[in-house]
Amino acid sequence: MTDSEPVIGPATYFRPEHRTGLDARTLALVDRREAVLSPGYRLFYAHPVEFVRGSGTKLYTRDGDEYLDVYNNVPSVGHAHPRVTAAIAEQSALLNTHTRYLHEGLVDYAELLLASFPAALDTLTLVCTGSEANDLALRVATGATGHRGVIVTENAYHGVTTEIAAISPSLGGVGSLAEWVRTVRPPSGDGTAMVADARAAIAALQAAGHGVAALIVDTAFASDGFIAPSAETRAALAAVQALVRAAGGLVIADEVQPGFGRLGTRGAGSGAAEATLWGFPRHDLEPDLVTIGKPMANGLPVAGLVARRDLMRAFGERVRYFNTFAGTPVSIAAARATWEVLHDEQLPEHAADVGDELRGMLAELAGRHDRLRGVRGSGLYLGVDVVDPESGDPDSPAAVALVSGLRERRILISASGRDNAALKLRPPLPFSRADAERFITELDGALEDLG
Amino acid sequence: MTDSEPVIGPATYFRPEHRTGLDARTLALVDRREAVLSPGYRLFYAHPVEFVRGSGTKLYTRDGDEYLDVYNNVPSVGHAHPRVTAAIAEQSALLNTHTRYLHEGLVDYAELLLASFPAALDTLTLVCTGSEANDLALRVATGATGHRGVIVTENAYHGVTTEIAAISPSLGGVGSLAEWVRTVRPPSGDGTAMVADARAAIAALQAAGHGVAALIVDTAFASDGFIAPSAETRAALAAVQALVRAAGGLVIADEVQPGFGRLGTRGAGSGAAEATLWGFPRHDLEPDLVTIGKPMANGLPVAGLVARRDLMRAFGERVRYFNTFAGTPVSIAAARATWEVLHDEQLPEHAADVGDELRGMLAELAGRHDRLRGVRGSGLYLGVDVVDPESGDPDSPAAVALVSGLRERRILISASGRDNAALKLRPPLPFSRADAERFITELDGALEDLG
Repeated sequence: MTDSEPVIGPATYFRPEHRTGLDARTLALVDRREAVLSPGYRLFYAHPVEFVRGSGTKLYTRDGDEYLDVYNNVPSVGHAHPRVTAAIAEQSALLNTHTRYLHEGLVDYAELLLASFPAALDTLTLVCTGSEANDLALRVATGATGHRGVIVTENAYHGVTTEIAAISPSLGGVGSLAEWVRTVRPPSGDGTAMVADARAAIAALQAAGHGVAALIVDTAFASDGFIAPSAETRAALAAVQALVRAAGGLVIADEVQPGFGRLGTRGAGSGAAEATLWGFPRHDLEPDLVTIGKPMANGLPVAGLVARRDLMRAFGERVRYFNTFAGTPVSIAAARATWEVLHDEQLPEHAADVGDELRGMLAELAGRHDRLRGVRGSGLYLGVDVVDPESGDPDSPAAVALVSGLRERRILISASGRDNAALKLRPPLPFSRADAERFITELDGALEDLG
Repeated sequence: MTDSEPVIGPATYFRPEHRTGLDARTLALVDRREAVLSPGYRLFYAHPVEFVRGSGTKLYTRDGDEYLDVYNNVPSVGHAHPRVTAAIAEQSALLNTHTRYLHEGLVDYAELLLASFPAALDTLTLVCTGSEANDLALRVATGATGHRGVIVTENAYHGVTTEIAAISPSLGGVGSLAEWVRTVRPPSGDGTAMVADARAAIAALQAAGHGVAALIVDTAFASDGFIAPSAETRAALAAVQALVRAAGGLVIADEVQPGFGRLGTRGAGSGAAEATLWGFPRHDLEPDLVTIGKPMANGLPVAGLVARRDLMRAFGERVRYFNTFAGTPVSIAAARATWEVLHDEQLPEHAADVGDELRGMLAELAGRHDRLRGVRGSGLYLGVDVVDPESGDPDSPAAVALVSGLRERRILISASGRDNAALKLRPPLPFSRADAERFITELDGALEDLG
């Protein structure tokens, strides 16, 4: 499983040979688009889809056809949520400046957000994208430690700036990484592999003169196959964290995708490990820096870095950093409204409940279709492998066929993973039990069609 | 003169010792802000200002006090322009997804935008910030050339990602640059210094094994003191461009600040060098890559890279690049509305006209006050030095005192430059003749106060 669009297999994309199957309007728009946008842009589906309207968990085409969205994690409180869009409209009509003037909204939001973190993580810096957040986290870490080395999991994805693409093996494999990057296996199984790898990575980085600036992990380990927290993962991560700290390095939790309740929250009073909007406490990780983004403002470019104050003080003394578009009144109004909807509609708790039901339905379906295997994940961030029924091996063509079949059945989903043979589910959080049933019915049908 | 907020002198910022002068409400908000935001955040002015509303070239405090904005270049078509805010509100309520589905608005906008560039620059990639645009441009250039070396002007500012901070001497001087960066003097005077420096930089980069990936220049050369196009600058830049190309490097024009008409446009039919929204044609530069941003969507985080198609095709074959928040329907609706207002209200032409008048008024004022010298710039992007009347040397304390004095007179402006002794003017483009007169009157008064 991978956690990011860039690593979704090319087979689910539109390619020139698909042109012949398109209606005239779609073909004309595709051709105009390809004439002006970079050839690096990709369109989903052999039969691309054009949406003009969204609401909740549904997207609508020009012709009014309704699609169920099991793919989009950015509009986390639902497409075009009226409270968020009203907040954006209202603030846009008033004022949109920057953080060098006082603005109460920024301070209010920062206080709300930081209250959801452990006390030591008391300092917020706003940026525009998850890539910028991880880029800044690494700048802080390399400056604070005086080291250059970075440790990532073996199929990690953290973003697209020059610096962050160089620590993202999922974008192009280990060969694309910078010389100061080492990979470790995720804390799966009994976790000993990760600890052994971390020991070796630290030794190698020190031997090469890079030292260890940071370990950075996606706390859902989504691109490494979704690692559920357990006594073993906690022990492994505690050991790795201690090794990194002993080498003078910092720990960065990348919550850009798992954060803001996507993994499901059990409620503050429950005493459960899931009584949090974030992934890192579930693994007992104690990060020095936490990056957040994607669902933060339900679609406006808002992201952030939450950190220990001493680290940011040292950074601020050493480096002048100002991000023009970050923390503006409109961005913050959108983030604040998203935060309020998340809480007022109890979406993280809903994600836990409906996620459990959906996982159960998927497991039941996997019991009836031997092409499905390995249902996993947490809350509304789930994955399931598509395999060859005979060999049990990952079956990328079948996964791609399912994604296409589901698109024709008006369900949006993606195939991803290192083998491009896993289905990844990450719908807007208001995803209902009825949505789950509709999805399962159509997946069942698409599996039947596959034979 | 510098072109970016990060390099504005610390003396114009709020510092702890200014707390004693604040009213209770401001003090409380400042204290709350400092408790949650990174110590790297800066507030303008010893007496920080809190705005709650903006319109055109004016900003308003909670108490209804009106300030004239001579500082903010992002809200380029005016604060809270009703057409832009209506477009944002309308699109937010409809749909905000990403570029992997078809959306007509994205294609329409790309066509409009690209029509303003030379035919060879025919391919658009959208990102969220100017830093991301320059970071991507360098990734494309290093990949296309197989080289690592980058040449920048000696006080350049290009952004804040790890990669781009490492090519921005204005953030921390030459010592903060990466080993694969060399600086050249800007094309001032007869331009021969820049050509000699470029020759040396290329030789040094090649000798160090880096080769030359790119020359990148801000086409207003704002942070290098605003270089006006002339026969000499054109000859110098043509020579440098040829040297860089001969070394296998590419040319990147950074239009993040000068672009979208800020330098003033003379009208397409005028035959003037200024018949363009961009800075690079004025210098006869022929860039391979152009980065754009800041005013592109009047405040929403929208930026882009305009490039030769062959470069982006090669990049797309080599690298998977997807930017979640870039080119979304809401971003594009804001950019489209900003573009339409810019044209319908003829703001680039207005910037040329009122910019000329303002420059004339400044020159007249400099004739009466020997503290002002060296009025320069183009359109509504102007600078003037503040000097010691006796020695003629840059006088940073006087510049800071003028900025503070103007703030008390409800005029927003900044002091910047390597010596922090220049006033920089870059108001929203609807800046009127009456606004210019008000500014000059208050600057005159602030100069009188200074004695």
